[in-house]
Amino acid sequence: MVNYSGSGLDRTFAALADPTRRAMLAMLRKGSRSVSEIAQPFPMSLQAAMKHLDVLSHAGLITRKKEGRKVACALRPRPLKAATRWLKRYEQISEERLDRFEAYVEQLQRGESA
Amino acid sequence: MVNYSGSGLDRTFAALADPTRRAMLAMLRKGSRSVSEIAQPFPMSLQAAMKHLDVLSHAGLITRKKEGRKVACALRPRPLKAATRWLKRYEQISEERLDRFEAYVEQLQRGESA
Repeated sequence: MVNYSGSGLDRTFAALADPTRRAMLAMLRKGSRSVSEIAQPFPMSLQAAMKHLDVLSHAGLITRKKEGRKVACALRPRPLKAATRWLKRYEQISEERLDRFEAYVEQLQRGESA
Repeated sequence: MVNYSGSGLDRTFAALADPTRRAMLAMLRKGSRSVSEIAQPFPMSLQAAMKHLDVLSHAGLITRKKEGRKVACALRPRPLKAATRWLKRYEQISEERLDRFEAYVEQLQRGESA
């Protein structure tokens, strides 16, 4: 299901293509959490939740650190930044299109032929 | 390989998890292109390239329109915007962390104990 080879962006986007994994990352925005705290809200086995954490870890989106008897997971925002940078190149396109569309609407409002 | 059910974000991120598909979208940033123009630079059969275009189309990232004997593909930036919006929530986190890190370095520079 998830691409384990491929580049950083391949792994980041593949990891983000699952709602459970996105929800896990959202939990970690507030700070680090133990594996059991992260797994708790999801209607799945601890084993299944840990597989999702494996994918996130392999994509470099989280770090895992043993703290006594618990494993603490923390968000690692760098790969998300790279993904955002890739996507931002397209943001401009929507804005350019919107600008053109607005100019067209204004032209129509002034009663000029389009 | 690609999630055909799931939500919009699932499909968008799954579609972006492949370098060929990202390169195809990058080509379309400059304007619409025919299927054969898009397929041409890639070392794969037209059939394989069309499968990638199917994934992009299913994720709503491109539109396909028959123009005479050709099929023109165009970028549809809306799903990319939704993905950017999701990712931007994490941008703030990196910035907050960087701010804290800078404050810490300044503290060290002033010779205060950390």
